[in-house]
Amino acid sequence: MAAPRKIIVDTDPGQDDAAAIMLAFGSPDELEILGITAVAGNVPLSLTTRNVRIICELCGRIDVRIYAGADKPIARELVTAEHVHGKTGLDGPELDEPTMPLAEGHAVDFIIDTLKSEAPGTVTLCTLGPLTNVAMALQKAPEIAPRIRELVMMGGGFFEGGNITPAAEFNIYVDPEAADLVFKSGIPIVVMPLDLTHQLLTLKSRVERIREIGTRPAIAMVEMLEFFERFDVEKYGSDGGPLHDPSVIAYLLRPELFKGRECNVEIETKSALTMGMTVVDWWHVTDRKRNAKVMRHADADGFFALLTERFARI
Amino acid sequence: MAAPRKIIVDTDPGQDDAAAIMLAFGSPDELEILGITAVAGNVPLSLTTRNVRIICELCGRIDVRIYAGADKPIARELVTAEHVHGKTGLDGPELDEPTMPLAEGHAVDFIIDTLKSEAPGTVTLCTLGPLTNVAMALQKAPEIAPRIRELVMMGGGFFEGGNITPAAEFNIYVDPEAADLVFKSGIPIVVMPLDLTHQLLTLKSRVERIREIGTRPAIAMVEMLEFFERFDVEKYGSDGGPLHDPSVIAYLLRPELFKGRECNVEIETKSALTMGMTVVDWWHVTDRKRNAKVMRHADADGFFALLTERFARI
Amino acid sequence: MAAPRKIIVDTDPGQDDAAAIMLAFGSPDELEILGITAVAGNVPLSLTTRNVRIICELCGRIDVRIYAGADKPIARELVTAEHVHGKTGLDGPELDEPTMPLAEGHAVDFIIDTLKSEAPGTVTLCTLGPLTNVAMALQKAPEIAPRIRELVMMGGGFFEGGNITPAAEFNIYVDPEAADLVFKSGIPIVVMPLDLTHQLLTLKSRVERIREIGTRPAIAMVEMLEFFERFDVEKYGSDGGPLHDPSVIAYLLRPELFKGRECNVEIETKSALTMGMTVVDWWHVTDRKRNAKVMRHADADGFFALLTERFARI
Amino acid sequence: MAAPRKIIVDTDPGQDDAAAIMLAFGSPDELEILGITAVAGNVPLSLTTRNVRIICELCGRIDVRIYAGADKPIARELVTAEHVHGKTGLDGPELDEPTMPLAEGHAVDFIIDTLKSEAPGTVTLCTLGPLTNVAMALQKAPEIAPRIRELVMMGGGFFEGGNITPAAEFNIYVDPEAADLVFKSGIPIVVMPLDLTHQLLTLKSRVERIREIGTRPAIAMVEMLEFFERFDVEKYGSDGGPLHDPSVIAYLLRPELFKGRECNVEIETKSALTMGMTVVDWWHVTDRKRNAKVMRHADADGFFALLTERFARI
Repeated sequence: MAAPRKIIVDTDPGQDDAAAIMLAFGSPDELEILGITAVAGNVPLSLTTRNVRIICELCGRIDVRIYAGADKPIARELVTAEHVHGKTGLDGPELDEPTMPLAEGHAVDFIIDTLKSEAPGTVTLCTLGPLTNVAMALQKAPEIAPRIRELVMMGGGFFEGGNITPAAEFNIYVDPEAADLVFKSGIPIVVMPLDLTHQLLTLKSRVERIREIGTRPAIAMVEMLEFFERFDVEKYGSDGGPLHDPSVIAYLLRPELFKGRECNVEIETKSALTMGMTVVDWWHVTDRKRNAKVMRHADADGFFALLTERFARI
Repeated sequence: MAAPRKIIVDTDPGQDDAAAIMLAFGSPDELEILGITAVAGNVPLSLTTRNVRIICELCGRIDVRIYAGADKPIARELVTAEHVHGKTGLDGPELDEPTMPLAEGHAVDFIIDTLKSEAPGTVTLCTLGPLTNVAMALQKAPEIAPRIRELVMMGGGFFEGGNITPAAEFNIYVDPEAADLVFKSGIPIVVMPLDLTHQLLTLKSRVERIREIGTRPAIAMVEMLEFFERFDVEKYGSDGGPLHDPSVIAYLLRPELFKGRECNVEIETKSALTMGMTVVDWWHVTDRKRNAKVMRHADADGFFALLTERFARI
Repeated sequence: MAAPRKIIVDTDPGQDDAAAIMLAFGSPDELEILGITAVAGNVPLSLTTRNVRIICELCGRIDVRIYAGADKPIARELVTAEHVHGKTGLDGPELDEPTMPLAEGHAVDFIIDTLKSEAPGTVTLCTLGPLTNVAMALQKAPEIAPRIRELVMMGGGFFEGGNITPAAEFNIYVDPEAADLVFKSGIPIVVMPLDLTHQLLTLKSRVERIREIGTRPAIAMVEMLEFFERFDVEKYGSDGGPLHDPSVIAYLLRPELFKGRECNVEIETKSALTMGMTVVDWWHVTDRKRNAKVMRHADADGFFALLTERFARI
Repeated sequence: MAAPRKIIVDTDPGQDDAAAIMLAFGSPDELEILGITAVAGNVPLSLTTRNVRIICELCGRIDVRIYAGADKPIARELVTAEHVHGKTGLDGPELDEPTMPLAEGHAVDFIIDTLKSEAPGTVTLCTLGPLTNVAMALQKAPEIAPRIRELVMMGGGFFEGGNITPAAEFNIYVDPEAADLVFKSGIPIVVMPLDLTHQLLTLKSRVERIREIGTRPAIAMVEMLEFFERFDVEKYGSDGGPLHDPSVIAYLLRPELFKGRECNVEIETKSALTMGMTVVDWWHVTDRKRNAKVMRHADADGFFALLTERFARI
C-alpha cells in the first residue's frame, strides 16, 4: 500500500471546514496531516484557532500541530460571515472550550518550513478559507512554489454566481489579492467552486445516515450541519444546504467523484461591484493560460457515502 | 381587437437582428413599427444601416422609416463581431444592395421626437444591440424616460457567463456606460439574456420548418441562420446555435413563453476583466433596487413555432 | 483689420464664467459670439440658463442666442459647487430675473449645426464648464471634430492639485467621461488649468480698478468677484482668489500673456480617489501622444489690465 | 548626552540609498543602526543585498547585520529602475564584490523580532525603497504597529508629479498595496516626497565639497552621484539631480532643515493611469484622517553641509 499523501489543511472553521477536517481524520490510510493552519475568514482568527482545536479535541486528535496564521487579508480589512456560521463559527452543538495549545510559530513559517524540509512535490495544500496564509508564504519564500504538489481549494463560483455578493464567493472575496497571487503562482491548482458544491446538498436522508453513526463526533457534526444549512435553505428554498469544504478532501480521496476542466481563472481585484469574482474561461474564449482545474460536476451520493463511511471511522 | 402596440426597434443587424425584425414584420396585428434605428455594434454603422434597409426591402417593407444613429459607444472605441456575423453582418444568403433611402435626421432625435409626440406610456423600445442610441436620447432629453412604456432588450448574461469575454455579453460589453445609464434610468426594463437565449437553439428540425415556408424571405433567413449558428455550434458543441434577438419581439407577442424574476441588475464599467458584465442579483442578496425583469427560462418549441408561423405571413 | 474670430462659449455661470462672457462682450473687434450654450455644472441647468441670460441682459446683449444643453454628465450624477458660487451661481450683486428667452433647440444641435454651416476651421469652442455638451456633439456628429479650429478650455490642474478633491479640478471631475472623449478627439486643445489660474488672483488693487469703471456691469462684476473669492481666500489664505474662466477668452485676445507646453493629457475615469484628475505628462516621460497645449505661466498684471480695459468698453 | 536613536534602514540601493546609509554611518552619536534590510526595488533583490554589503564594506562596517527581504511586491510583478541607477544599482565607481555574509533569517522576521524585543516606542523605521518588507511585517505581526516610534520614508510626490509615471513616484508605484497598508496602519509617518527632494540638487559646488573629503568612501560616493544625476539633469535640464534618500536620515539628525504639514495621504491602487500616486490632501479639503507628516520645503544648503560633515567622519 502506498504511503499516505502529505497534506497541510489551511482553514477558517466554519462548520463545513469542520466536516472537511473530520473527513481527513477519518482517512489516515490515504492522508497524513502534517499540520493545520488557521486563518481569519468565516470568523476572526481568535475563533478559527479556537475552532480548529475544538475539532481536533472532539476527534481525539490532540497530536495535531495547529498554527495561527494571518488575522486579516493582505490588502484589505477582514470581512466575516457570522450570518452563515453563527457567532462562534461552529454554532449548533454544545462544544467545550479547547485546552490543547497552539503550536509555536506562525502558520506562514510552518508552511514554508514544511515545504522546504519535505521532499519536493510531496506536500499538498488544502485550503478551505481565504488564501491569505498561502499568499504570504509564497510572498516570503517564492522558492516554495515549485515544491508544492498541488493546491486544492474550496473557493470561487462562476455559473452559480457568488454567495457573499451576486458575483463573488466568500473565500475569494475576503482576500482577492491573495487569491490573485495564488492563481498567478504556477502551482497546480484544483478548484472546488460553488458551481460544484451546490450539488452537494445536506438532504435530510444524507444527514440521517451520519447521525446513525452515533458517535460523539458524528452527532456534533450533524448538529453543525443542521445549523449551517438553515441559511442557504432559506435563501434558495432547497432541501438542504450546499456542503462546501469537504469536497476538497473528498477530491484527494476519490477524484473520480468529480468532473471538471483545465481552464484559465482570473480574480477580480479592481471593481467594487464584482470584487473577488473568479472569472473562469470555461469555454476557452480567451488565450489566457490554463492555470487551474475547475471542477463543475459531482457525484453527490458518492460524496455523502464517502463522508459517512469516513466519519464512522473516527 | 386592441390597437397594435407601438414599437421602435433599435438594432445592429446581425442575422439574429434580421430574424427579430422579420418576426415583427410578420406580426402587424400586434405590433406597429414606428421606425427602426440603427446603431454600431455587430458591424459598423455603415453596415448596420445598410443591413436594416436590406431586410426591409427583402420583406417588401420600403415604407419603414430607418434612421442612422451612433457610430460608436458613448465613452469607448467600437468593438465589432465579424467573427460571428461575417464581414457584412448578414453573411449567408446572396443579398442585393439596398436602394431605399435612410430617413432624414438622427436616430437619437427620432427616438426623442417620437416619445414626445406619441401619448405617454404607449411606445415600447426594443433594443437588439448596444444601448448607445437609447442612452444618448435619455441624456439629451431626460424627460422622455417616464414616457417609455417598456424597454425590452436582448443583452447580458449571468449564469451562462458571457460570449465576448468570459464574463460579458456583447451588446452590454460594447457600450457599458450606455447600459449603465439605461439600467439606472427608472424605465421599466425586460432583459432577455444569454441565460435565456442559450435555450433557443437553431436545431436542424426547427430550421427546416422555416425553410419549408419556401418564400424568398424565409429562405434567406434560413441561409442567415445556417451561417450564424456555425460559430456557437463549434464553440459549445451543441446542435444548433442560440438565436438571441427575436426573443425580444417574441416576448411582446407571447410573454407566457418566458419566465423570469424582478431583480437588481448593475453593469460593470470599471474593471477590464469583467467589463460589461451584467451583475444580476437573482437571489436578492443585496438591498439594491429591483430595476429589471430578467428572463431565465424559455419555451423553446413555442418560440420557434411562433417564429415559423409569423415568418410565413411575410 | 481681420474679421473677428468666431466663437461658441459653453458655460455654467458661475461668477468667473460671467467675467469670461463679459470679457468677450467687451472685445467685439476680435471676437464674434455665434452663440452661448449652457450646461449643468457649478449650478443646475435651470440656473445656468438663467444666469447666462442675466449676464447678457446686464450687458445689453439680448441679441445673443443662448441654448440650453445637458442637464447632467454623460455617465454620472451631477455634482454642483454652490459652496463656492452661492445658491444661485451668481451670488453677490442684486440681479434682476431675466426676461429674454432661450433660443429654440438643444445646445448640442446648435454646436453641430454651427460647425457644419460655418467654414471648416473657423469656429473656436470656448468651454468654461464640464465638457458634456461638446462630448455629446462629438458623439452625435463625429464629423464635426476636424471642423473645429480650436477648443480652449478652463479645466484641470496638475502641479497645483485639484480644487474639488485633492487631485481633481471641478470642471473635469463633474464629467470625466466627457473630458476623456474630448481629449481623445484629435481637436486642437488649449488648457487653462488651476496651475495657471492660481496665478490670476483678484487682488484688492486689481478689483478696485474694475470698480472704478463705474458702470452697472462693472459694479455687478466687482460684487460677484468679492463673493466668489471668499472661498479660496479662506482656503489658501491668499490675498484674493484665483479667477479661472476669463483666462480662456484672454488667451484668444492676447495669447502672449500665457506660456505653456504641448504635452499629453489623460483623464482619470476609473478610480474614486483620483477621479477626474488631468494627468499631464509635462516632462514627456511617456510616449503618449501630445494632445493638448497646457498653459502653466501667466502675466497676471497683463491679464487684469486686459480685463479692466475690456470691461470698460461694455 | 542622549543615547543614540535606534533605527532599522530598509533599502534598495541605489546610489542615493548608499548616500543615506553613509549619512547614518557618519552619525554614530545620534543613530544606532540595529540592522539593514534589503528589498527589491531599484534593482532586483540579488543586487540590493549585494549593494548593501558593498556599502558596508566600503565604510568598514562589516559588523552591521544585513537581511534579505522580499524579492517582489506583495501583489504585483516587480518593476525596477536600471534606467536611472545603471545595471548594478550602484553604477559609477569601481566597486569590489562584497565578501561579508548576509545575516540568517528573513528581513521581515528581523523587523518583527526587533520591534518585539526592543522597548516599545524606541525603534524608528527608515525606508528608502518600496514598502514591501514593512507591509509584510505588519501583515504577519500586526501587534508591532504600536511599538514603532516613527516611520520616515522617502516616497511619493504630489505637487511635483511623479518620476516613474507622470503621477507616481517610484517607491510607491512599485508596491502600492504595501504603501496603502502602511499609510492605513496608524504608525506615525513622516514622508519625504519628490516635492522636497527636488530641492536637494547635487549642484557641482556641493559635490565638489564631498570630493574634497578625499577618503575612499567619499570619492566613491561622488562617482555614484555623478552617475546618478545624469538622468534627471537630462530630463529637467537642471544643474544637478535631486538627491532623494538621504533626506530620511537627515530628518532624524536635523529635523529643523525641513518644513511640512500633517495631512491625509491616500495611495492610488486601482487605476493604471494614476497607479501608485500619493494623493496628499495638503489643503484639508476632505475630512479624511491626517495620517502623515508630509515635508515640502528643505534647507538645501544645510542639508548638503550636513552630508559633507558626516561623510567626512567615516
